[in-house]
Amino acid sequence: MTHTEPPGTAAPTDRTRPRRMREKVAFARADLEAVLDAGFVCHLGVVVDGAPMVVPTVYGRDERNLYVHGSVAGRSLASDPAAEICVTVTHVDGLVLARSVFEHGVNYRSAMIYGVPRVLTGDDEKTEALRVLTDHAAPGQWDYARRPNRKELAATTVLALPLTEASVKISAGPPDDGHSPDAVLGRWAGTLPLTARWGAPTADPLLPHGITAPAHVVARAGTRQG
Amino acid sequence: MTHTEPPGTAAPTDRTRPRRMREKVAFARADLEAVLDAGFVCHLGVVVDGAPMVVPTVYGRDERNLYVHGSVAGRSLASDPAAEICVTVTHVDGLVLARSVFEHGVNYRSAMIYGVPRVLTGDDEKTEALRVLTDHAAPGQWDYARRPNRKELAATTVLALPLTEASVKISAGPPDDGHSPDAVLGRWAGTLPLTARWGAPTADPLLPHGITAPAHVVARAGTRQG
Repeated sequence: MTHTEPPGTAAPTDRTRPRRMREKVAFARADLEAVLDAGFVCHLGVVVDGAPMVVPTVYGRDERNLYVHGSVAGRSLASDPAAEICVTVTHVDGLVLARSVFEHGVNYRSAMIYGVPRVLTGDDEKTEALRVLTDHAAPGQWDYARRPNRKELAATTVLALPLTEASVKISAGPPDDGHSPDAVLGRWAGTLPLTARWGAPTADPLLPHGITAPAHVVARAGTRQG
Repeated sequence: MTHTEPPGTAAPTDRTRPRRMREKVAFARADLEAVLDAGFVCHLGVVVDGAPMVVPTVYGRDERNLYVHGSVAGRSLASDPAAEICVTVTHVDGLVLARSVFEHGVNYRSAMIYGVPRVLTGDDEKTEALRVLTDHAAPGQWDYARRPNRKELAATTVLALPLTEASVKISAGPPDDGHSPDAVLGRWAGTLPLTARWGAPTADPLLPHGITAPAHVVARAGTRQG
């Protein structure tokens, strides 16, 4: 288990402190950024009428904040502007197939961020956040596609969640029952890796002939995601 | 948008009713089962001290319930046995690259289940739930690996969440601005598909020579997940 707290990163709080021994928990800013930068869909948790609601949504991040669209979180923020949210980003790297069922598990990297989001209000900060979000989820598209106009900007709620209270959990490597009494069972044990890759771009059927996919889109085909 | 409510499936409640027009929302039992059966990691949302907490965890399901390990949800259930949880399963199928940034999006399939989970207490029902969970996440391993003994069973909390209040959202297909004024911009538009696949099994370095991966593990290599 790693427990690093370099200058400038948040100290663990009661809910970001590790609970289980098998998990590696990291509080280093670089670990957080690596997990966030490897993905583009998070699971956003809000409390609505006292009950949890978890929805998938696109995100981006800069040095200070994680950005999400506000349509979902708006339901919790509407009733309480100081309501906390939780954003979790998870990459599943494979199955851990141990000698016993009890030791089975998943290799993964996951980041959790807690905080009270700020609803962006100025056109400039909203535009900049949408640029960050777009360049994060769909690199190159901010410069290629038509950017939001004033009407679209007004119709878009963007939330900024500070990257101050966060934790990263990483589970990697083989099962850990290789030295247990179960090793004599003679059962195979190991991992079954899982990898997500981008496929070839598929053109909109309504696209006129002669318009080819831009280089920044074509270049992603075959590359790993996560 | 599809809105099917065949006999035997739950009617939409206020929070499972669709909010946005672009999303296709389905309440058919078959849609729910298809999304759940395509994955094995969910995002579990609980409320702890009034704030949401979202954690990734493995799940399985049978005809009536979704099953998760209780270590995380235990923190919310400890303070309130009637506390609701939310389980969300999401498969990301690709990016929707539209002519305008505003119309960009993600193709995905997602299921959300709300309810008050039941903590399983009997050895038989716990064992059966762990079998379901194991066979769901790691097919074939329940019969191959050593099954939980009484001590392990006692150390494992299993929650059963009824599949009664659930919704499925599906976003698929090309961007929908092909007939908009932006079509004349001459920009490429389409989708960039994302696919997760299992890799070749990797043996535990501690495994003695001569023990080969079982057929049910080898057979998954190269197959699609999600």
